[in-house]
Amino acid sequence: MSELRKDPIVGRWVVVAKERAKRPNEPRIAAAPRDAQDLCPFCEGNEAHTPPEVAAFRHPGSHSNGPGWRVRVVPNRFPALRVEENLEKQGDGIYDRIAGVGAHEVIIETPVHQSSMAAMRPEGIREVLWIYRDRLLDLKNDRRFVHGTLFKNVGAAAGSTLEHTHSQLVVSPVVPTAIQEELDGSRLFFDHRGRCVYCDMIRQELAAESRIVVDTSGFTAFCPYASRFPFETWIVPKHHSSRFDQIGKSGVDDLGHVLHEVLFKLERGLDGPAYNYYVHTSPFDQPDSPHYHWHLEVIPRLNAVGGFEWGSGFHLNPVPPESAAAFLREVDVPPASAVAGLPERTREPRRALVRV
Amino acid sequence: MSELRKDPIVGRWVVVAKERAKRPNEPRIAAAPRDAQDLCPFCEGNEAHTPPEVAAFRHPGSHSNGPGWRVRVVPNRFPALRVEENLEKQGDGIYDRIAGVGAHEVIIETPVHQSSMAAMRPEGIREVLWIYRDRLLDLKNDRRFVHGTLFKNVGAAAGSTLEHTHSQLVVSPVVPTAIQEELDGSRLFFDHRGRCVYCDMIRQELAAESRIVVDTSGFTAFCPYASRFPFETWIVPKHHSSRFDQIGKSGVDDLGHVLHEVLFKLERGLDGPAYNYYVHTSPFDQPDSPHYHWHLEVIPRLNAVGGFEWGSGFHLNPVPPESAAAFLREVDVPPASAVAGLPERTREPRRALVRV
Repeated sequence: MSELRKDPIVGRWVVVAKERAKRPNEPRIAAAPRDAQDLCPFCEGNEAHTPPEVAAFRHPGSHSNGPGWRVRVVPNRFPALRVEENLEKQGDGIYDRIAGVGAHEVIIETPVHQSSMAAMRPEGIREVLWIYRDRLLDLKNDRRFVHGTLFKNVGAAAGSTLEHTHSQLVVSPVVPTAIQEELDGSRLFFDHRGRCVYCDMIRQELAAESRIVVDTSGFTAFCPYASRFPFETWIVPKHHSSRFDQIGKSGVDDLGHVLHEVLFKLERGLDGPAYNYYVHTSPFDQPDSPHYHWHLEVIPRLNAVGGFEWGSGFHLNPVPPESAAAFLREVDVPPASAVAGLPERTREPRRALVRV
Repeated sequence: MSELRKDPIVGRWVVVAKERAKRPNEPRIAAAPRDAQDLCPFCEGNEAHTPPEVAAFRHPGSHSNGPGWRVRVVPNRFPALRVEENLEKQGDGIYDRIAGVGAHEVIIETPVHQSSMAAMRPEGIREVLWIYRDRLLDLKNDRRFVHGTLFKNVGAAAGSTLEHTHSQLVVSPVVPTAIQEELDGSRLFFDHRGRCVYCDMIRQELAAESRIVVDTSGFTAFCPYASRFPFETWIVPKHHSSRFDQIGKSGVDDLGHVLHEVLFKLERGLDGPAYNYYVHTSPFDQPDSPHYHWHLEVIPRLNAVGGFEWGSGFHLNPVPPESAAAFLREVDVPPASAVAGLPERTREPRRALVRV
């Protein structure tokens, strides 16, 4: 179905569809299924419109693939990588490829049609975090898989095609480039200074205060010094840990609170922007590391990325992170149970808004 | 005005505006100037609406900053980097920054209001390539500058805000990440095998044929094996050279032809897509290199880049490069002087279509 191909110059991996797209000028992978034009496949009651669930938190007495769930995980209908394939590695002259083995799952965060995670109740956000952890722990048992990327797309500009709030998990047979760069960079820092660069960063941010957005006993949310995107915000645990899947109850409670605050501030303050977030965590097969530190990065997608950025690898950020953090700090967050005041699109009727 | 900040983990550089944006939720750097709402600042006759020109190819008897030019280069009104600043390097705890010294120029490719480079006459495209070279040769005389990135944004999804066909040049005081990765990767390949990886790639592509789009005596255009984007196309000189600024007359003639063919095929075949291109060339201060090989990469921007790509560094490409190349090969290119048949927007009236 797909294969992973490696650029022979910089070592970058690309997931390439093996078959010709239906029309060559229709290159979307994750187009909404045809039968979703008039109903939302992620709403409770429409379970038959998704592939069979692989996990769910359900009310007692409810049954798989029927109503009665609170969070539900299903395979992606248009998976980038598939569990079924054999892990075949091949060369072709100077090129390398691997069969597209892996997993691609969708985490449906709530049974109610809701476009905003920030409008969810805190218990709901916590259950999403718990099921993130459960899926990672389950999939790492398959020895072909080496890493899982949890991510979220909100809005068309951020790559989303379905409105109902959801996240995704892609488990891959190679360590993603972005993770490898962080592993290498944080090891270099550790080898030189004997400390974790993320722990150092938290200390410096808390002392400087200017880039802090939210701070609790367990987590710090700040706009990083070298923010690529306006209002980019990282959420980093204060207690060193290289693996998200080692999070416990107090961590989930605290992260759920901080994530809600950050997303609410972004949605309210920036009028419902497109954004992504993703979790950066250690590869499955690596032991606990003193130099790597898991974290979550939120990137609002307010401006187009152009030829300068793609061509140079530089980013242009017109909003200094100090200004972004000051702005976000001033956005008031009401008690988590009150959703009033969120941008209008969070209260749309129960239908699929397909954003292409 | 701006500063370059370095991410302490992965070493990524970001150009951050030093001053607060006028409104924190209006993060565009390169918004069109106010007086361009009803006239195009890039059209002949409107020279007063740009900063004074730094270079131009002009008809005999015409004067700077007046009509009579064929290609014109002006400073960007909203520069990412500025020539005027001192190259100051500073640390701040674990962070590093450099003042935003550099240059940011706009190459106005034609005096006639025209959105498509593919609709230009071949002589015009060649003059654009000559002035690319001239600007690099001029700016490399300033010892503070180490690299120049030539790039082009077409369409809002590719970061363009003005329709009139133009390119840009950003000269920076540090080697861009994307270039450093290619330098490192191609050196590693050379150290192991004693050959240039790009030369090897050309040989393999010409033998395989399946990913070739256009082939001439001097240049090969192909969809790379590990294409990140659908219909991504690289144009690579067949004769090894690490520096674009060493291109001569036959090179410019040939590249002008190939670039026209590739852009025409993309515009016609994909119905006027947003796209970027950029030139990857060696840093100013490096001697001719047996391992690095300059080239031009064209990336159509047909699908949104989402959280998976930003979070993992993987790309998802739903169109195999073999299918993309076969499709592009079949798009006929009429003699370069005939523009009939190009998408409609290339023949719009002479006004500024501000794409935000």
